[in-house]
Amino acid sequence: MYDIHDLTRKLQRSNDSKIVLLVADGLGGLPLSPGEKTELETAKTPNLDELAQQGTLGLSTPVLPGIAPGSGPGHLGLFGYDPLKYQIGRGVLEALGIDFDLGDNDVAIRGNFCTISDDGNISDRRAGRIASDIGAKLCEKLDQIEIPGVEVFVRHVKEYRLVIVFRGEGLGGEIDDTDPQRTGVPPLDPHPRDEASQKTAEICKAFIDQAREVLKDDAPANLLTMRGIAKRPPIPKFEEVYGTRAAAIAVYPMYRGLARLVGMDVLDAGTTVDDQLNRLEAAWDDYDFFFIHYKYTDSTGEDGNFEAKVARTEDVDAAIPRIRELNPDVIVVTGDHSTPAKMKAHSWHPVPVLLASDMARFDGSTEFGEAACVRGGLGQFEAKYLMMMALAHAGRLEKFGA
Amino acid sequence: MYDIHDLTRKLQRSNDSKIVLLVADGLGGLPLSPGEKTELETAKTPNLDELAQQGTLGLSTPVLPGIAPGSGPGHLGLFGYDPLKYQIGRGVLEALGIDFDLGDNDVAIRGNFCTISDDGNISDRRAGRIASDIGAKLCEKLDQIEIPGVEVFVRHVKEYRLVIVFRGEGLGGEIDDTDPQRTGVPPLDPHPRDEASQKTAEICKAFIDQAREVLKDDAPANLLTMRGIAKRPPIPKFEEVYGTRAAAIAVYPMYRGLARLVGMDVLDAGTTVDDQLNRLEAAWDDYDFFFIHYKYTDSTGEDGNFEAKVARTEDVDAAIPRIRELNPDVIVVTGDHSTPAKMKAHSWHPVPVLLASDMARFDGSTEFGEAACVRGGLGQFEAKYLMMMALAHAGRLEKFGA
Repeated sequence: MYDIHDLTRKLQRSNDSKIVLLVADGLGGLPLSPGEKTELETAKTPNLDELAQQGTLGLSTPVLPGIAPGSGPGHLGLFGYDPLKYQIGRGVLEALGIDFDLGDNDVAIRGNFCTISDDGNISDRRAGRIASDIGAKLCEKLDQIEIPGVEVFVRHVKEYRLVIVFRGEGLGGEIDDTDPQRTGVPPLDPHPRDEASQKTAEICKAFIDQAREVLKDDAPANLLTMRGIAKRPPIPKFEEVYGTRAAAIAVYPMYRGLARLVGMDVLDAGTTVDDQLNRLEAAWDDYDFFFIHYKYTDSTGEDGNFEAKVARTEDVDAAIPRIRELNPDVIVVTGDHSTPAKMKAHSWHPVPVLLASDMARFDGSTEFGEAACVRGGLGQFEAKYLMMMALAHAGRLEKFGA
Repeated sequence: MYDIHDLTRKLQRSNDSKIVLLVADGLGGLPLSPGEKTELETAKTPNLDELAQQGTLGLSTPVLPGIAPGSGPGHLGLFGYDPLKYQIGRGVLEALGIDFDLGDNDVAIRGNFCTISDDGNISDRRAGRIASDIGAKLCEKLDQIEIPGVEVFVRHVKEYRLVIVFRGEGLGGEIDDTDPQRTGVPPLDPHPRDEASQKTAEICKAFIDQAREVLKDDAPANLLTMRGIAKRPPIPKFEEVYGTRAAAIAVYPMYRGLARLVGMDVLDAGTTVDDQLNRLEAAWDDYDFFFIHYKYTDSTGEDGNFEAKVARTEDVDAAIPRIRELNPDVIVVTGDHSTPAKMKAHSWHPVPVLLASDMARFDGSTEFGEAACVRGGLGQFEAKYLMMMALAHAGRLEKFGA
């Protein structure tokens, strides 16, 4: 398959246009019953509706039809990276989710505190779900572990969950989980799947041996298992593939981490939408491309709270006028996946896309919603092509061939 | 990726059906303001509208979403050749554009006359944009150059532009431009990018040495630079991959050249649409597939002349009755890309497609235009699939598998 970044590298054109990508996480939804409206269709969104009249709508498929993506593949697709080509390990995502600045030589691991009984078998895979303050203190102790030849970082995530990072030259990231996924058996040895990960496996083993000593009096959290051991994939950087200076304005660490992974500058986003818009205005002259992330359309969907998702969608709508006052050349409003309140989960349903630009082929849309998007001028497309369309509408792609 | 021609080779079926592909270059457009109509929607096209009622509409993406194609990739897509797989070098296109009959062993080069000052540096990369009659005479002189082991052809294009072709066995086409893209420096040496192009690079150098002598008294055009040095890509022929005898009826050399590249017979098309229709009628019994090319929907778009593009679109409409009188089994009317007058350039916007056939699944369309095409039965698809659909509607493809 042709790599779309081979195209964008060759065709990228510099100009002074500005692109805003506003991601309302989990934006797509479902009606609760046939004949009713989705969350987005129910929400009063006068600003998005006006934008729809001056743009064109469509539906994006995050990965492939029928595939519900996690946040990682969902966002990589929106950033123009084929989510099937660039797969992000669980350990890496966990590290990104706590704002840990992962480098190319880092192996990231998701750790779970567990309880080991006297016979050496696991009796509780989550160490009795210890409180977060206890988990945090144990992580501080583990962070003191030293292993010759590598730097060791241990960071607490929440309750029984932690992140371990080994930093050093020549560490492969292909190692099986040590969590046996059941109790009554001992943790598994860290088993390397390739030659290059032999040394990493030995380091994992050395870490576990020391951790056993460090934690021996801390039952129920007297050991840990390792999962999702992985390095970050080699991802070409945004500026190189698109020729844009890109900034991320995201409140949640996971999305800052994903933006950092593709080489965006991660700006201080504060905690509210107003904070984010203040930052956008302050940074407007310094960047060509802005990724703004809004979380609560997803979390209300995950909660199964239809009305709350409607209200959070209206919050997104309320942000539009301040963005438009900056007069961006292209505004894209979309989600990284659908999170229908009806399902309380990420889903595979295609995601509403609104692309507004003077160069859009207006499609007669009068409102932004799933049904309008089905009839939209962008049609249905794989999310990985959205960046090329945004760049094209901003005049940032040369003609292909003569 | 699966090669679609592996499918069409295996499935092709011969019958006495006739297919007409009418390409209105740059057909797709944009409304000038939201809520207004495109050029095609503004044009009075009673014949196309009637055809739309007896066919099905759609939108084709020439290359990939967001990618604006040149004429080469635009037409290769329409002919069913993946434009990312078959890329045509600039020198080859330039040669096709002057009706030069390029063979498999030919290396084609776009030349620019330039001015060299006494210190050997380029002082004008376009030789003062010399008049065409002067350029033509200089090309006649250069055409006398002889290089052992190859045939040399030098043809004038326009003003300071020329085409050079070296014909011979074992000539690679991977050589960097000698145009340094700036003045105050000497031309670059022809640098081969692979082993197979070593010999060609030496021939380029020998040619430039002789040209320096031939042109020494012809300032401001006292040397030339070489660009887009290339061989034509190995393209399987139309008859082999589709089993059709195909004819091209195109007024402009570039499109005749592109048709010749895929193995169509290139017929004398005269200079007007009437000439082209006369030729179509005369050749009707001799071919299965007719490619008719109309240029002026593109050139008026490039001029930014909305009204003129509307008028030229109405000219295309006026050609439909004479085509229908011949009773073709399939008529396809489309463009190779969009050229919105609003942008004065080729664009990435998907291209209206009308496919009329007794076997079409009529989609309720009542007119031919971009908005109707968004709702059309063919949906949105990559242009490279259009040929398979045309062949299918003509009964020229067997069932795949049992």
